[in-house]
Amino acid sequence: MKPVCLVIGAGAGIGGHTGKKFAAEGYFSCLCRRSDSRGLETIVEEIKQDGFEAKGFMLDATKNETIENLITEVEQTIGPIEVAIYNLGAQIGDKPLDETSQKQFELGWRLGTFGLFRLASSLFPKMVAREKGTLIVTSSTAAVRGNGGQHSHAAAMGGRRMLCQTLNAEFSPKSIHVAHVIIDGAVDAPDTLGKMLGPTKFQKLREEIGLENDGLLLPEKVADTYYHIAQQHRSAWAHEIDLRSFSDTPWWNR
Amino acid sequence: MKPVCLVIGAGAGIGGHTGKKFAAEGYFSCLCRRSDSRGLETIVEEIKQDGFEAKGFMLDATKNETIENLITEVEQTIGPIEVAIYNLGAQIGDKPLDETSQKQFELGWRLGTFGLFRLASSLFPKMVAREKGTLIVTSSTAAVRGNGGQHSHAAAMGGRRMLCQTLNAEFSPKSIHVAHVIIDGAVDAPDTLGKMLGPTKFQKLREEIGLENDGLLLPEKVADTYYHIAQQHRSAWAHEIDLRSFSDTPWWNR
Amino acid sequence: MKPVCLVIGAGAGIGGHTGKKFAAEGYFSCLCRRSDSRGLETIVEEIKQDGFEAKGFMLDATKNETIENLITEVEQTIGPIEVAIYNLGAQIGDKPLDETSQKQFELGWRLGTFGLFRLASSLFPKMVAREKGTLIVTSSTAAVRGNGGQHSHAAAMGGRRMLCQTLNAEFSPKSIHVAHVIIDGAVDAPDTLGKMLGPTKFQKLREEIGLENDGLLLPEKVADTYYHIAQQHRSAWAHEIDLRSFSDTPWWNR
Amino acid sequence: MKPVCLVIGAGAGIGGHTGKKFAAEGYFSCLCRRSDSRGLETIVEEIKQDGFEAKGFMLDATKNETIENLITEVEQTIGPIEVAIYNLGAQIGDKPLDETSQKQFELGWRLGTFGLFRLASSLFPKMVAREKGTLIVTSSTAAVRGNGGQHSHAAAMGGRRMLCQTLNAEFSPKSIHVAHVIIDGAVDAPDTLGKMLGPTKFQKLREEIGLENDGLLLPEKVADTYYHIAQQHRSAWAHEIDLRSFSDTPWWNR
Repeated sequence: MKPVCLVIGAGAGIGGHTGKKFAAEGYFSCLCRRSDSRGLETIVEEIKQDGFEAKGFMLDATKNETIENLITEVEQTIGPIEVAIYNLGAQIGDKPLDETSQKQFELGWRLGTFGLFRLASSLFPKMVAREKGTLIVTSSTAAVRGNGGQHSHAAAMGGRRMLCQTLNAEFSPKSIHVAHVIIDGAVDAPDTLGKMLGPTKFQKLREEIGLENDGLLLPEKVADTYYHIAQQHRSAWAHEIDLRSFSDTPWWNR
Repeated sequence: MKPVCLVIGAGAGIGGHTGKKFAAEGYFSCLCRRSDSRGLETIVEEIKQDGFEAKGFMLDATKNETIENLITEVEQTIGPIEVAIYNLGAQIGDKPLDETSQKQFELGWRLGTFGLFRLASSLFPKMVAREKGTLIVTSSTAAVRGNGGQHSHAAAMGGRRMLCQTLNAEFSPKSIHVAHVIIDGAVDAPDTLGKMLGPTKFQKLREEIGLENDGLLLPEKVADTYYHIAQQHRSAWAHEIDLRSFSDTPWWNR
Repeated sequence: MKPVCLVIGAGAGIGGHTGKKFAAEGYFSCLCRRSDSRGLETIVEEIKQDGFEAKGFMLDATKNETIENLITEVEQTIGPIEVAIYNLGAQIGDKPLDETSQKQFELGWRLGTFGLFRLASSLFPKMVAREKGTLIVTSSTAAVRGNGGQHSHAAAMGGRRMLCQTLNAEFSPKSIHVAHVIIDGAVDAPDTLGKMLGPTKFQKLREEIGLENDGLLLPEKVADTYYHIAQQHRSAWAHEIDLRSFSDTPWWNR
Repeated sequence: MKPVCLVIGAGAGIGGHTGKKFAAEGYFSCLCRRSDSRGLETIVEEIKQDGFEAKGFMLDATKNETIENLITEVEQTIGPIEVAIYNLGAQIGDKPLDETSQKQFELGWRLGTFGLFRLASSLFPKMVAREKGTLIVTSSTAAVRGNGGQHSHAAAMGGRRMLCQTLNAEFSPKSIHVAHVIIDGAVDAPDTLGKMLGPTKFQKLREEIGLENDGLLLPEKVADTYYHIAQQHRSAWAHEIDLRSFSDTPWWNR
């Protein structure tokens, strides 16, 4: 039986490409997202047509019991989850404080911090029993510095980063690898950046700084590093890694 | 009319002593806490007997509208809030993941992160209109690193720290001073450390490393720095400060 | 006998104003700088005319034995040094790697890192014997992030910051207070910024963002916080503080 | 012609294993070290017996012109250096300030910071001309926090880290990948840890926490990540990575 890779937040960017990469390397990829079941099915089909294994799941991570039930279902019907990728973003664009509602702020926390807590609470007991497991958490610059207009996002990501450290502190000695990956730049992803900008602006950005110029993070290249992290020997695990395009400016130099 | 200093989380530790210090320096101190109205009244009386002004308010910051109504009440009945101290802790002691309930994790966020967001949302528009104001946020080592067993607390404090940065980014140019103070060590405070340890253990700790040895952070000395922060000229504001006892080991050396 | 405050790097900016502030508060200020003995004498005279005590010393901190001999001289002829301010900069402006000579890089280290090591090596044994002392180190954003063109400066400041931490780790329990102050912005200082920009540009900058707008760090206001640091009770010492103008953008938001 | 991988500091730990790994993956490995030419020759022979290519060079990086001449020689006699590994340590064990001589402190800087500057100054112009190159810098926890007794080492590593950032800022847009790897723990390396502890203590430590327990960083596993870094696509480069054993405690939790 193949090991299972569970991707929570599997659009056409980092999540989807990570699912593809792990499937191509011999994992059964379980891909979850909240909306666009058609887009999800497309990715699953692409993986299958390449001769690999995957299954799609619709999941609203903000709702009670959803993550918990998903893990039960995957473990019972597909197999033990060896690698989990928590790839849910909480970016809502820049909003000044007086335009950031309590509801939005709470939603940011539910996606950015609480969902990760719920995932770990459900999954780690199983991984501990198997003495094996990897959790890779996609994060962002907002986890290490709070910019103007990012009240909801940065608070959620700051919580996410500290939670990754507390999870690592408790579970690393139990052979669970927790890695916090700071994606420091725009990703060439139609489902997130594309939707935020709209198709015309997104294509223009792609042509200007992406494509041949590699100015956007290519999600399939990010997936290569996610895969490497999951293969690291336990004597030399990475906990925190930053990734950005060669032509972009690191957040600390901006 | 005296300027108002509002302290949210005013027990017998940093909060109460900060209230005393600001009152002694000419502010009207408004002290808020959730429980022990008697203890609150004691502090208020001590301030008054020294010839200064203060008033106590019972406040459950986890409940809807409480912080918002408090600010309205204080501004209407006492006067413009010039300095606010957000001093609510969210420490629940070390608990492994499987003993940290979703409810506890959410409560940590409500006290640690969300309450601060609500305070700023309510208060900052008033301060912006007056082009003047200071928000000092008591924080902890858990805001910069997540230890084992600290899932709820560290996630809440990590969110708190990033929120302080986003607030600073938006409001510093509008003459609102936001300062994030990392209290890196145990405070000689009967209401928090004292309750966590119980009276016997607390007194023993005080005798061993506190008192003459200054091994515990003395809250009245912390208050001196809080007062200095509130007096800093806007051309040289501090945003982040760490405080610890001389005989204690900084978190990064532990 | 008055306690002595020794300022290494006492031009018309932070160093000179710190010397003035401590003198006004009852210290004997010993002011040292490498060049412009006339400028140095002016500051000393100003302090004396206000009725306080000070003395100037010419010092080339890059030369062997200079710092060491200075400390011996001051302790023997003036009195015990209670507070030392290490205020030497190492900024040489932005230079790409191929324009940064080995000599420049080494000079940066001599001023930025090695001089501080020599100061501590000479002074701390005396402070330890007295169980009392404060070392305040002026530092810069380059201590926490390295920008393009800052090879010499950032390497020197990165070393400075870590050295402050190792000094603090060894000497804080011996009652020596070491504080690392990150000056995150341009200081309204004719001797450093003024010389770098030239008088016309400097005055223009002062008029545009400084003066009434407080967009430059006012060195006399920085001195207020230096003085507060030196007065902190040992149960609540700050080790690292950042200072910037309200209207400036923190380095992490740039 | 094979691409060249130059390893500065190639003992039997991370340096030697990185040389082996890159040789096995198709690079010509040039291995440099200061002493033990016999040990160096052993590694080179092992690589050759596996059918790969390598050459050893004796190098004293503290001496003038040595690094500079080495690069000229390698480029002229072997080929273009595509990957350079700066693996020189500067750890001299814990020494209190009064036992840390100026000479030791300077030597720490020469190995820890200045050598890296000299390497980059010599090599980067060639890499820029070729629009391709990778510099991986082995670093340590002392680059991010200064412990007691680590005056020389931490100052050197703090400088190293900031220098990596300034090099990255200038050269990343020119397609040179600079990566700073924080090795946060003891490495199973007879030439460094083994010499520091002596053979008996070292073997005891290996048996207690290393070997089957993977409690020491295995250098051949670190080499796997170094190799991955050198293969990362330029749209998703890592600049800073921490590595430690699963059973070890991260520096921020100690």
